[in-house]
Parts: sequence; C-alpha cells; structure tokens
Amino acid sequence: MTEVEKVLDAYASSTLSLQDAVTGLHRAYIADIGHTALDMHRAKRVGAPEVIFGLGKSAEQMADIFETLAQRQQDVLATHVSRAQIEAISERVDGVAFNDVARTATLSFCPRPRREKPIAVLTAGTSDNRVAEEAAVTAAFYGNTVLRFSDVGVAGLHRLFACLDELKQARVAIVVAGMEGALPSVVAGLLKMPIIAVPTSVGYGAHFGGLSALLGMINSCAAGVSVVNIDNGFGAAYQASLINTD
Amino acid sequence: MTEVEKVLDAYASSTLSLQDAVTGLHRAYIADIGHTALDMHRAKRVGAPEVIFGLGKSAEQMADIFETLAQRQQDVLATHVSRAQIEAISERVDGVAFNDVARTATLSFCPRPRREKPIAVLTAGTSDNRVAEEAAVTAAFYGNTVLRFSDVGVAGLHRLFACLDELKQARVAIVVAGMEGALPSVVAGLLKMPIIAVPTSVGYGAHFGGLSALLGMINSCAAGVSVVNIDNGFGAAYQASLINTD
Amino acid sequence: MTEVEKVLDAYASSTLSLQDAVTGLHRAYIADIGHTALDMHRAKRVGAPEVIFGLGKSAEQMADIFETLAQRQQDVLATHVSRAQIEAISERVDGVAFNDVARTATLSFCPRPRREKPIAVLTAGTSDNRVAEEAAVTAAFYGNTVLRFSDVGVAGLHRLFACLDELKQARVAIVVAGMEGALPSVVAGLLKMPIIAVPTSVGYGAHFGGLSALLGMINSCAAGVSVVNIDNGFGAAYQASLINTD
Amino acid sequence: MTEVEKVLDAYASSTLSLQDAVTGLHRAYIADIGHTALDMHRAKRVGAPEVIFGLGKSAEQMADIFETLAQRQQDVLATHVSRAQIEAISERVDGVAFNDVARTATLSFCPRPRREKPIAVLTAGTSDNRVAEEAAVTAAFYGNTVLRFSDVGVAGLHRLFACLDELKQARVAIVVAGMEGALPSVVAGLLKMPIIAVPTSVGYGAHFGGLSALLGMINSCAAGVSVVNIDNGFGAAYQASLINTD
Amino acid sequence: MTEVEKVLDAYASSTLSLQDAVTGLHRAYIADIGHTALDMHRAKRVGAPEVIFGLGKSAEQMADIFETLAQRQQDVLATHVSRAQIEAISERVDGVAFNDVARTATLSFCPRPRREKPIAVLTAGTSDNRVAEEAAVTAAFYGNTVLRFSDVGVAGLHRLFACLDELKQARVAIVVAGMEGALPSVVAGLLKMPIIAVPTSVGYGAHFGGLSALLGMINSCAAGVSVVNIDNGFGAAYQASLINTD
Amino acid sequence: MTEVEKVLDAYASSTLSLQDAVTGLHRAYIADIGHTALDMHRAKRVGAPEVIFGLGKSAEQMADIFETLAQRQQDVLATHVSRAQIEAISERVDGVAFNDVARTATLSFCPRPRREKPIAVLTAGTSDNRVAEEAAVTAAFYGNTVLRFSDVGVAGLHRLFACLDELKQARVAIVVAGMEGALPSVVAGLLKMPIIAVPTSVGYGAHFGGLSALLGMINSCAAGVSVVNIDNGFGAAYQASLINTD
Amino acid sequence: MTEVEKVLDAYASSTLSLQDAVTGLHRAYIADIGHTALDMHRAKRVGAPEVIFGLGKSAEQMADIFETLAQRQQDVLATHVSRAQIEAISERVDGVAFNDVARTATLSFCPRPRREKPIAVLTAGTSDNRVAEEAAVTAAFYGNTVLRFSDVGVAGLHRLFACLDELKQARVAIVVAGMEGALPSVVAGLLKMPIIAVPTSVGYGAHFGGLSALLGMINSCAAGVSVVNIDNGFGAAYQASLINTD
Amino acid sequence: MTEVEKVLDAYASSTLSLQDAVTGLHRAYIADIGHTALDMHRAKRVGAPEVIFGLGKSAEQMADIFETLAQRQQDVLATHVSRAQIEAISERVDGVAFNDVARTATLSFCPRPRREKPIAVLTAGTSDNRVAEEAAVTAAFYGNTVLRFSDVGVAGLHRLFACLDELKQARVAIVVAGMEGALPSVVAGLLKMPIIAVPTSVGYGAHFGGLSALLGMINSCAAGVSVVNIDNGFGAAYQASLINTD
Repeated sequence: MTEVEKVLDAYASSTLSLQDAVTGLHRAYIADIGHTALDMHRAKRVGAPEVIFGLGKSAEQMADIFETLAQRQQDVLATHVSRAQIEAISERVDGVAFNDVARTATLSFCPRPRREKPIAVLTAGTSDNRVAEEAAVTAAFYGNTVLRFSDVGVAGLHRLFACLDELKQARVAIVVAGMEGALPSVVAGLLKMPIIAVPTSVGYGAHFGGLSALLGMINSCAAGVSVVNIDNGFGAAYQASLINTD
Repeated sequence: MTEVEKVLDAYASSTLSLQDAVTGLHRAYIADIGHTALDMHRAKRVGAPEVIFGLGKSAEQMADIFETLAQRQQDVLATHVSRAQIEAISERVDGVAFNDVARTATLSFCPRPRREKPIAVLTAGTSDNRVAEEAAVTAAFYGNTVLRFSDVGVAGLHRLFACLDELKQARVAIVVAGMEGALPSVVAGLLKMPIIAVPTSVGYGAHFGGLSALLGMINSCAAGVSVVNIDNGFGAAYQASLINTD
Repeated sequence: MTEVEKVLDAYASSTLSLQDAVTGLHRAYIADIGHTALDMHRAKRVGAPEVIFGLGKSAEQMADIFETLAQRQQDVLATHVSRAQIEAISERVDGVAFNDVARTATLSFCPRPRREKPIAVLTAGTSDNRVAEEAAVTAAFYGNTVLRFSDVGVAGLHRLFACLDELKQARVAIVVAGMEGALPSVVAGLLKMPIIAVPTSVGYGAHFGGLSALLGMINSCAAGVSVVNIDNGFGAAYQASLINTD
Repeated sequence: MTEVEKVLDAYASSTLSLQDAVTGLHRAYIADIGHTALDMHRAKRVGAPEVIFGLGKSAEQMADIFETLAQRQQDVLATHVSRAQIEAISERVDGVAFNDVARTATLSFCPRPRREKPIAVLTAGTSDNRVAEEAAVTAAFYGNTVLRFSDVGVAGLHRLFACLDELKQARVAIVVAGMEGALPSVVAGLLKMPIIAVPTSVGYGAHFGGLSALLGMINSCAAGVSVVNIDNGFGAAYQASLINTD
Repeated sequence: MTEVEKVLDAYASSTLSLQDAVTGLHRAYIADIGHTALDMHRAKRVGAPEVIFGLGKSAEQMADIFETLAQRQQDVLATHVSRAQIEAISERVDGVAFNDVARTATLSFCPRPRREKPIAVLTAGTSDNRVAEEAAVTAAFYGNTVLRFSDVGVAGLHRLFACLDELKQARVAIVVAGMEGALPSVVAGLLKMPIIAVPTSVGYGAHFGGLSALLGMINSCAAGVSVVNIDNGFGAAYQASLINTD
Repeated sequence: MTEVEKVLDAYASSTLSLQDAVTGLHRAYIADIGHTALDMHRAKRVGAPEVIFGLGKSAEQMADIFETLAQRQQDVLATHVSRAQIEAISERVDGVAFNDVARTATLSFCPRPRREKPIAVLTAGTSDNRVAEEAAVTAAFYGNTVLRFSDVGVAGLHRLFACLDELKQARVAIVVAGMEGALPSVVAGLLKMPIIAVPTSVGYGAHFGGLSALLGMINSCAAGVSVVNIDNGFGAAYQASLINTD
Repeated sequence: MTEVEKVLDAYASSTLSLQDAVTGLHRAYIADIGHTALDMHRAKRVGAPEVIFGLGKSAEQMADIFETLAQRQQDVLATHVSRAQIEAISERVDGVAFNDVARTATLSFCPRPRREKPIAVLTAGTSDNRVAEEAAVTAAFYGNTVLRFSDVGVAGLHRLFACLDELKQARVAIVVAGMEGALPSVVAGLLKMPIIAVPTSVGYGAHFGGLSALLGMINSCAAGVSVVNIDNGFGAAYQASLINTD
Repeated sequence: MTEVEKVLDAYASSTLSLQDAVTGLHRAYIADIGHTALDMHRAKRVGAPEVIFGLGKSAEQMADIFETLAQRQQDVLATHVSRAQIEAISERVDGVAFNDVARTATLSFCPRPRREKPIAVLTAGTSDNRVAEEAAVTAAFYGNTVLRFSDVGVAGLHRLFACLDELKQARVAIVVAGMEGALPSVVAGLLKMPIIAVPTSVGYGAHFGGLSALLGMINSCAAGVSVVNIDNGFGAAYQASLINTD
C-alpha cells in the first residue's frame, strides 16, 4: 500500500479528518532530506522529472539529492553544476552523465520515446554555444531530437539563409543570442513556428550582463517571440519540449 | 500571370539578370503605399495575415492601410488603435470590427477553421483585463477558442484552485499579471503545458510601469514559463496560436 | 558613582553649564575605542544589545570590539563575519559562538527568557538557507523559538500546504526567497500574521543581485507584507523579535 | 444549509468525488461577478475583510463590487479611489464613507473593538500627509487608535524630539517620508518598537518617483525597520494592525 | 573695419594687453541678445551655420534669435520647434520654412552646392518617420541629396533586400529604428559604408522611452555602426553631412 | 518672558524635571499650525530663515504658512511655488515678492547686509535659465551679489573664455547645465574657487530627466566640483551663500 | 572552377532548382569549422576582412580560426584576445602580430595602400590609453595613418589647445574618454570633422562601468558626435576607416 | 629666459605668428612624458599642485610621473595608489609618503602655511574610515587642520550630539556615509556651515555599490548639502580646502 493509499484509506474509515487527509496526501509527495524537499510525484503531475538548480547548493547537498533520487529510480537533470558538485556526485552515485560545456548532470532510468519533430537551437555567435549546449542537453533529456545551427548572427545574414530549409523542419526554434539580441526578430520574420529567445551574457560595455540582449528580445518587432531569462538555456528547452508534444 | 510569374518568366528567357530577378521577386511581395510597406504574401509565408501596430501612426495612415488591404481582400488585425484611428477607418472601410477594451480593429474575409483545443487566458486582477482582452481578440482572430479566468491572483489561491480542472483542457495558457507578477510561476507549477507570461503595467510606486512584473516573470523559479513585453497581449496570443496548431 | 551620576552631580552644583551637562551625559553612553563608538546603554535604551556589522571592518577592529564588550559583560551579535575576523576574535575572547552558514558570531552573558510564541522562517529554495540561518541565529539570540520550513517555494505549492498547520502556530513569519520572490505574497494570502519578506541574491541573469526579488516583494499584491534589504536575515529577525514581545 | 455544507454532504454520501468536493468547496468561497472574484470568507480566513485596489478598475466595476458586498453585509475598504468611482458608488450604495485626502472609501457594518495600544503615524514633511492619511484611515478601519505626528523630518530634529514621550506609547510606528527617506533610521534608533517605513513619491530630480526614498529605507543602518511600496500607506497600516493584536 | 580687425589693430599699437586682445577677439564672435549668446563666426569656424534647439526656449526667445540672425543674413536651422514658437517667428521674420512632421524651422540665404553622393535615410517602421524627417530636413539644409527608405524593418527582411541596389549609391546611411533597434546591425552587415544609428522612442512596455533601442544599437554585433541620442535625427544628419564632404 | 525663559525658570525652580525641560525647550522652537511645524528659531540656529518647498502643499497650506510667518515678522523664501499658491498667498499676505521664472515667493523684513564678494551663476544654455534664476533669487535673498553668465556651454568654448576675467571676481561659482553636464568640469579646470554643479532636466532621449547630467557632474574629472539635485537652484545657492561668508 | 561557379553552372544546366542554387551560393561564402562559420567573401562584400571577437571563445577555437584563415591567406584582426589565446595561436600559426596593450592579434598578407588623410585618436587621460591603442591598431590594419594625442582631457583645456593645429589635419577624430565623457563635446565644438566618441570604463563610484561616460556622450550638446559601445576602440576605428575612404 | 618668455620674445620680434605664439605658450605649460601630459603651471593657475589618479595607470607610468615632478620640485598627491605602484615609485623617488588606509602617495617640497580654521571629517560607521582617511590626507596636504569624528551615524544620534560643540569650530564639514546616507541631512540641520557629503560603497544588497547612499544625499531634505562621487574622499577635501581659504 502506497503512502497515498494509506491516507485515503484512513480518511474513508474516518480515522483522519478532511484537513488531516489533505495534509497527509501532500506530505506523501515530498521526500524531505533536511535542506531540500524533493518532489516525488512531479513526473506524474507536471509531465517532467525533477530538475535541480545547482547554483548556491553545496557539493554535499547535491550529492544527497542525486543519491535520494537514484535510490528511488527517479530521473533527474541538474543545471549550473560546479566542478566540486560533479566530484561529490560521482563519488556517491553511478551512471550520472556530465556535460562540461553545458555544466549539466543527468541521470536517466527510463529513456523517453523520441518526439516526431526536432527542436532547432540557433546561436548568433560562437560565444553563445555554452548556453545553447544547456538547451540541447535539456531538450534531449526530455526526448527531443535537436538541430543545431551555430554562429548565424545578423551581421552576416547569408549564414542564416543557408540553413532556412533545414530550419523549417523544426516544430519550435530556440534562438540564443548576446550583444543586441536581434537574431530572434529576424528568425521570427522568416519562420512559421514559435520562437523562444534566450538572451546571453555575451557582450561587454553597455551590455550589462545580458540586459541589453534581454530588452532587445522583449521589444522584438516580430510577432511569435517569447523570452526566458539571460543564459537560461534550460528554461527555453523545457518550454520547447512542452510545445513539441505531438 | 501574377507579378511573381512574370519575373520568373523574364529570368528564364534571360531578359532579367539573376540580381534583377531576385529584386523583382521581392518587390512583388510588397504593396508600397508611401509611408508603409505592406506585406502581401505574409499569410502564405509565415502563416498569419498582416498585423498593424497602431501607436505612432496617424489616423490617415491607418485608414490607408485598411483600405489597401480591404481592396485586396486581405485579413488584418490592428492593435493599440486610437479613437481617432477608428473613426478614420470607419469612414473609408466597411466591415471592420472594433473592440474598445482591447483597443483592436479586425477585418476578416475568410474565417479560419477552429482549432481543436482552447487557449486559456488568466488574469491576476480585474485591472489586468484590458491586456487579457487584447490577447483574447488576437487568439480568436487566428481561429482559437479562448477560455477566460479573471481575478485569480496569488493573494487568494483558492480562486485559482477552483478553476484547475477547466484550465487543464487548454493546450497553452496565457497568464496576465501586474504587481509582482507571481501568478505564472504558480500556474506553471500546477499545469503540464507551456505558459506564456504577460506582465502588465498595473501597479504603482516601485512598479516602474511594469518592470517589476516583467523581472518577476523572467526570473520565475518554475520551468515552462516564457515572457513577452509589458502589456503585450497580442504577442502572447500570437505565439500561443503558433503553439496550438494541432 | 557612575559617569552619568557624576555629570548630574556637577550640574546640580552648578560646576557644569546645561550644555556641558548634556554633552557629558551623551559621552557617558559611548565607549570610544578609536575607530568605533560602542553604545554602552543600547540594551537599556532600545531593548536590544549592540549588533556589529562585520563587512568592511578589519580583523583587528572586530577583535577590539569583542574584547571591549566582553570586558563589560555586554552581549553582542556580529553578522557578516569573515573567516579572518573569526580567527582574530577567537584569539582574544573566550566563549564566542560562531555559525559558519549564517556567518555570525555571538557572545551571551545573560540568556534571555524564551518568548511564548515561535517565529517561523521559510525559504523558497535550498540556496536561500544561508540567509535564513542568519535570521534564525538572530531570532534565537533575542530569545525566540524558531520554526524552520525549507524549500517550500511557489513552483510546488503542495510543499507549502503540507506545513500550513504548523505555520499557523507562529506569531510572525519571515519568508526568504530569491528568483522572482513570489513566496511572501502566497504566504500572506494564507496566514493571519505579519509577514517579513527577505529577498535573496539567489538567482542569475536578470536577477541583478536580488533586485528582482526585492521589487517583487515590494510590489506584493497581498497585504501584510513588509520587506528588508536583500540577504538581510538579521534585520528581518530583529524586527520579528520586536513584534513577538507578548 | 450553506454552500459549504452542501458540498460536504454530497461528498459524505459519495455523490461527489474527492476532486469535485475540493473544487466545490473552493467555489463556495468566491462571489464571481464577472470581472472580479470576491472573496466571501476572507474575514474569517485571514482576519480582515476584503480590500479593493481602485486603480485600473472602471467606475462601474467599483460600484458592482460595493453593491455585492453591501448586500452580503461584508465590510470593505477601497483605496486609490477616483472621483468617478466615488460618484458611481454613491449612486448605488448607501453608508459609504469617503476620505478625499486619503482617497479611500469604507463601508463598515460591525465596528471592530478598539485595540489597547495606539499605532503611531509620522511624516517627515507636510507633503507626505496624503499617504499618512491613507495609513490612518486603514488603521482605524481595522480597529486601531492612531497617533499622528506631522512634519517631524530629520532636517530639524528638535521637532521629533518634542514628540518622543508620546511616541513611546505606541505599539508600532509607521514612518512616512519622501526625499532621502532618512526619518525611519533615526526613529528606529530612538524607539523600542517595530518601524514600518513608507517611502513617498514626494521629491523631484533624482528622486525617481520615490525610488531614492525606497532605497534609503531598505538600506537603513538602523535595525527594526521594514519597508512597503512607495506611497503604500494602506499596506503599512494593514501590517501594523496585524502586529497590534494584543 | 570689422570688430576683429579693430581688436588686432589696438593690440599691434599696444593699446590693448595680450589678455584683453584675446578677450576682445572672443567677444567679437558672439551676438549676445541677453538670454542667448549667438555664435556669429560658427559657419566659418566649424563649417556649418548656427543650429537652435527649440525645447525649453520661450516663443519670444526663438523669435529674437531668428530676427537677429535674419538681420545679419545668417542661415539657421531650428529643431524641436513648437507650434507657439512657429507663430512667434512667423510674425517677426519672413522666409522661414517650417516642416510639421520634422518640427523644424529653416532660414537659408545662400543655398549650398549639392554634394555628389546622396545620404540614405532608412526607417524600420512607419512610426519612425517623424525622426527620419528631421534627419532628411537637416541633411538637405546642409546641401545633401537624400534617399528615403521607409518601413524596411527586420521582421520582413525582403522589404530591405528590395532596396539594396539603391542603398548602395549612398555615401553614408542613417538608420532609424525603435523597438529592439536591430535594423542598423543588419544594414551594416550588408553595406560597405558608415552607418549612423538613431534609436527612436517608438515602442511601449519595457522600451523605456527608447532606451532598449539605444542599448541594442550600442551593442551592435556588426562593425561600422555608431549611435546618436534617442530621436536625434538632426544629430545623425549633421554628422552624415560631415562625412559626405567629397 | 519668552517661552524659552519660562521653561528655564521652571527647571531651575525644580518644578520641571530635566526631561520635561528639554521637551519644553524644543516645543518653544516650533509653531505648530496643524499640517506643518514651523521652525521659529531657525534663523538664529542655522543662520538662515525658514525655507518652504512648495511642491505637494495645497494653496491653503502655503497661505497659512506665509500668514503665520508674516505675523511673527519672520523672513521666508518659498520655492517651487505654483500659480494657485501665489494667488492664495497674495490674498492673505502683503509684501510678498514673486518671481515667475524662478517660481519663488519671498518675504523680507530685515534686509541682510551685502557680502563683499559676488556669487557667479553660469548656464550652459538658454533653456537652463529657469534653474539659474532660482539660484539667483536665493543667493540675493541671503544677501549676496550675483554675477550672471548665460549660454556659455562647452560646444562653443570661446563664449566662456570671453567671461573668464569677470568670473574670477566671484568667491564661488554655481554652474547650471543639462545635456551631458560637462560645463562644471571645464570651469573647475579654469578657476581657483569652489564649483557647485546643478544638473538640469534640460535634454531628451537618454537624458532621463537630468540623470545623465547628474552622473556626468558626479563623475567630473576636475577636482573642486560638488553636486546638488537636478534642477535644485535653491540648494546650490544656499550652500554658495554659506561659503561666501567673509 | 570555384565553388560559386560550380553552383551557377549547375543551375544554368537545370540540375539545381532555384532554391537549391541560392542555398548553394550562400554555402560557398562560409567556411564552417564546427563552432564558427567563417565568412570567406567578406573582404569583397563589405570591403573589410574578417574580424574576430576573442571574448568567450576558447584558445582552441581561436587557433582553429587563425589556422583556417591563414591557410586561405585571408587577413584577420582579432580583438579582446587573452594570453591563453595568444599562446594557442602562436603554436599553430606563424606571422601573427600581437599587441599587449590593445589585446589584439593581426595577420596581414596584402598590406593595404595608405589613405591620404590621417585619423586622429585622442584620450582624456592616461588610463584611457588601452582603448585608444585598440583603435590605433585597428585603424592601421585597415590602411590608415594615425595621429595620437594622449591625456588632453577637459580639466586642463590648454593641453588640448596645444594640439589643435595638428588635429585639424585629420579626416575624422576618435575621442576616447572615461569619467564624465566631456571631451568629445569640446572637440566637436572646435573641429570641422566627424567625431566618433568612445566611452571607457575608466572611473569609479557612480561611473557604473562606463555608463556615465556613455550617457554623457550620447547627450552631447555639440553636433557632429556619434558614439560606440564602452571600451569599443575597434568599432570606432572601423567606422572611422569607412569614413576615411578618399 | 623661461620657455614662456622665449615665446613672448619671438612674438614681439615678429618671428612667431599670433597663432604660433598661442600654441607655443600652451606647450610651455605641459611636461609631456609620452603617456601623460603633466601640468607644470597648475599650482599657479588653479592654486593647487598636480593630483594623480592612480587607477588604470601602470606602475611604470606612476613612477615616471613622480620622477618627473620630483626633478622639478613640484608637490604631488596621488590617490587610488596600488601596492605595485607604491613599490615602483619607492625604487625611483625618495621622500614620498604613503598612507595604506587612504591609499595615497604624497610628495611635498614647500609645506603650505596652516589655515586658521579646521575642516571636520565625520563618518557614519567604522567601515567608512578608509574614505575619510583619503579626505583627511588630502585636506592636510593642502594645509588644513582636520578634526575627525568616527562612527557617529544616525542609528545612535547621541554619539553625534556628544561632538556638536567641537564640530562647530570647523569652517566646513565633510560627512562620509554608506548605507542610506542619512547623516549629512542630520548634520546640515544642526550646523551653520557648508556640508560636503561623500557617499561610500559600504553596504550590501540593494546598495548597488553606493548608489543608494548617493541618491539619499542628492535628495537631502536639508539645505546646505552638496555631494561628490561615491568613495571620493579626495574630491570632498579638495573642495573643502577651496572653501577654507580665510
């Protein structure tokens, strides 16, 4: 009998009040390991396994989290993973895949069936690749095929035009750009699909850590563009995967 | 023979150089009415008819645009339409539908077939309804059914929970909120679908015309959220419609 | 005869002018150790012992301060204490308690009687714990019992709901959150008590060192929320303790 | 039989599933009048009646809200009320009290018992009085006695010192200031009680609509200060009232 | 004998000290009409006649300035001219040309010889035309031919490509754009000439009065772009004219 | 017997405690007219009569203030005075001098003796004159002679050089400039006296209401410059007058 | 037969469709080395060889780029080159020139003919020299003679005046300044040529990494000034070179 | 014969044109050592010897500067001096005084006569002492006596009141404060002298490197306050010294 079934049983037999039952059911969803409340039913509830944001967590905490999830055979994707965290995880859990460029750690028990259509990931310049890689790892983790187009920024449009036919195969495009962040506007004018724009912190001077690219994308004159946080390759790919469900 | 066919013909018979042919083909796409270059093939190219942004255009210019498009039986949606623009359009073109809350004008010749799934439009508070209305008009213009949920902000979560079952019917949710812009994060934690967040300028003090809501949404701790410009109900619905294609 | 009494005496016997007496009384309140003017009557005057802000002080200065206060048996709490400061203090003063997560140093001579009701300290995510720990150390220093709720952010509301009954025991809640800072709004909608919101610098991209969380909290749509500086766990707990007096 | 009891009954007799019961219970809490979802159990749940934020609502909507609440004999306080809204309300509902300086409208059926201790409301300058008045109306609405101290800013400290004895009677102080927002720091250094700081938009030049005062207060060097939004007299008084419960 | 010659004479004959001579020479350059110091030798010194910035000047002051310059047969261009200023000027000075879209007033005595090559002025959207018009009036005032390309923004690149051959005739291009300000980057990638980018205040939401377009242009990933102030069509054309000297 | 003497007397005869005496003395300094606490001993204490900031005060309040001060024959200078306030004051108090450009109202009973040295007030452009006028009125009110230099901005340095000899007569220079705010740096490099820089809101585009000029002045590469708030002609002149005491 | 000729041939013989021919032509322009798409016809198309922005690229990637271009005898200029990148390049490619102050790497096969007129590069202070050096290296790379004027800022104008005659020889002036960024305004008032202003990050306090200098220059009161990004010496010189073509 | 006399001579004998004479005179003022243009007549012209800003200069450059000035027996004060610069200077020049807290280097040949009145330097907290020390070193370098008051911030006003009598001896007060920057307002309300406010970068969270303190001081409600850049102790003292001339 699962924890959830126990609560329902107790309520039906009136040994639990309504309020206690609701509380009890909620608790069943959470694996509380002190510093972190891991969500055990997330895959069922929101259609995606737990994701861990590495920044600000100690190497110890990260290893605890991976160990707990591995014991319960829960898939997990961790982003913004530091070198110290990778080492701590490696010592305690087997089978974790690390990606140095994307700074991700993934643990997969049941490989998800591939989606029919690919997700396109474009970068304006070589320096944006780190963020694009995070998006690509994330999209693959959720069962998507990824088409990569690197260094196709607006200062040399012929590079973009050379890929247009391939690009049109995708269900949704993730466009990663720093500097003035103009690429998503141009792509949205050329393609008939949702564009998820990812501003990057690539730039200098009045770039303010990516703010200029973010503002550029939010003010895009082309319809069909929505924006995620600076350098948030994961968030873009997560949403792209929710769009690419058919 | 269409303009496009004429160009191709001339090129094949070597009366046009390659460069002139390319230029000629481009020109065929554009109805140039002096102040504005209207895109005649947009519906075919990006899957959506021309959209006109009313702000900063004179009443005369708007009437010119509607007249030109009406003559060619092209559908059009105009947003941020002022009272003066509505009057100028009304005098010269028949059959334009105006929405006072959303400040839109629409002209539809061939009603698009309805999509199977609805788009949900939620607002945090009553004051956000103006923006939500723009989103709803836009979504309907592109052939989507719209589910509206008004005044379900995070300060009283029971209002949101009361709509969860209905909400789950949607393919994608547009979440409109001002103030701290927290609603999209909460919704994204509860639903398994893409969330398009629309910050609004509703607020005061340190709200800075919607900047606080925008930053809140861009920094959302919940995956699955992407963001459009402040008060940009149109942009959110346009993208939602691109997502809702199946 | 205390310094204060000496001044009053001199004034009564007309050996001090009114102005000199006032000046003399003020001086009696201060232990001037060159770089810092320590307030010897603060505990009596504002109901709380001296608090030292470690940032920008040299290790030498911090050790001077602790030594001076220890000699006069005055309680003290220091925050933002660096490793170098801890070492300098340890060498010269016994009985100082250090907390590595909270980065605090405390010296207590007369343990304060416990308050009847607890103060709740919630964090949205594991990465916010450092700030919450500073709040907890501070609250305990002033004689409060602390209830901790970790990792109960808005992206998974069931984690918060599971703690609601316990939360209701508190007299006041300190809610610590980074990212979009939405948790205080949700908590204020659920609980009938003052909420002190602490934005944290946990985030990246357009988070601007906590500014986004701060703006989110300041613009909260829920009544009952007030805000302290980014990462200011101490300030939140100090005020919570002033509220929790009965 | 109330709506709530009906749902519970149906669930007990198994004519409602658990999920439907939860949904049904939530609906019972809300009076949905189309544009706004009024919270009928708020007074019971969070210890305070419904509060309406006037900005961005039409005069019609405000009158609808007051009429609905008046019919159910629910107390209500509306802030940021415009002249047009006042007129619309007046035509349809009797017994509403308007305050022109504070721009509030209040409707009270059961006068709350007075609290034992007063709430102090201080302003730095005459120009801050509008915000202080909103705080005072709010505090009174929730059953508090209010002590007002006007024009006691830091440029002439003797004005503040003249009121110190009276000030010490209060349980909590609301300090309203524009310009550099220094008054709360000074007050917090003198009084042993929680200080709620309200920055105002009074200022010019580099004041940026109150941002400078807000930043000043958030960075206060004195412990015991928390801050609400610019010009948010209501929010300060609401929290002060939650503090002043004994 | 001119004022300048008189000074030199006096100095040579030792009736003026060196310092007085320098001062005297400077004074000869300036027609001081109380509120404004008009520069009488500017055309000779910096190769361009006096330009007057209308904002913040009274109608009286503007008329004084035009009258003084007209009496001395000095050409003048005034920008940001208000309706009231136009009326005041018209009453006192003949032959002034006003442009309502550009909000300029010009007075020309000696028509400058036309330059060999044209200056191109492009706008991203119809709403940017007001600023482009100011640039065009300015360029013409300084003797340049102007090529106008309206509404060729990046959301529909085919419109820009259709004009490329014509564009290549220009010596320098002024690119006027609001929203995300991406057009200059694209143009700079296609053309071999200096690009002067003019951000406009056309936009809404997170556009912040043109700041987003300005930041986009300053961060352009394409070399060859420099930027002037938001809406500063005059400044762009003035510099373009300095470039187009041969 | 004055109020102050009464208090001292009572204290000497032990009918007042020390604390009550201090409070009593403070009260004697203040004329409390309800909304405003007027400072009756300010002229004696800080060497300058009361100054009233008009913004945000009602016409009624301003008239009350002038009436009270006139009755006690206290000099007063009011700044940021609106037309409505001028009318209300005029109806109730005689002898008030109004300056429309500076938007000031002054009431002087005992003309102060002139200082030996003048204060220089420079403006970069004609549009900055409004702020310079406020500075000039203020300086004159406090007994200073004022030298005015208008329209001597850095784009035409010869205008400034023409005034250098006169400028050197001053004890202190107030330099008023909008746009990039460069004039104070240039002046400080040429003169051996304190420079008080006043940024103005004159500008457009990326000027942000004077912020750019303010930042320019704060970052001045020339030593000897300090800065007051945007458009704060009064503040600059007040400080200049404190400097010009000998 | 070149790649381009092959495509044209195939199209003429109908073995390539129009679309495939266009795509094929575009591909011929690009040397795709995985992470970066190098533009092989750039020198022909926009009149300048490839430029590489070093920031964010790995040492490996930079060496790949230089190797590929060296093999094809293409000139290249790299900016923002790190020490690690220099070492990686040096190991694999001969004949690369490095400049430590400017942080540039250049590879030149066909020295460009010198232009007739020089480009002037001025700095306000010694600390701005690093950026000026980048401008000078860039200008020389494109075949321009460079005149350098160092440390001629506005706080000591006589230093600038001493160089005026030499300065007048230039066709265009690049003015590099940090702090308040006032130098370009002063220079533009004295010279009859285009001024390209480069704000630098030299400053502290409220300089915000060069933002203050940037705002100062964008708001310049002198006509003839346009601005590039903070510290962007390359961009300024690139545009200056486009201006200096005759 | 000095350089200046030679030029005058040549001009009088007509071997130099007017323009060449002016240029020649200017050159005589400057010792050009390649990277830096040292001002040899500054002490005479603006009443103060050369000041060197160390940030961004190499150790070599600083040593060059000191050597050149030492050879000509010119006094010099350098600020923001790094450890490496100190070492380079020490190796090549004798008699330079270094201050580690203030980070200054001074070289004095002719000690200036002491001024009659002292300059007061106050800090709000111990952490502000570094900036205050720079101010004190600077003031002493220019011949002023300095009164120091440390740690007298607004959170404990009695500490300030204890020094009031001493403070009143000063001719001008420099008030150094971080956090909310409230101390200058309070001091200006108590003292009859010019107040120069120095915001410091001491703070955290929403302090933004001193911006909050700067804004607080610029918006001071007390007249008589002007402000210099964040952490600019030198600038404050330089101006104070210009004020303290009699």
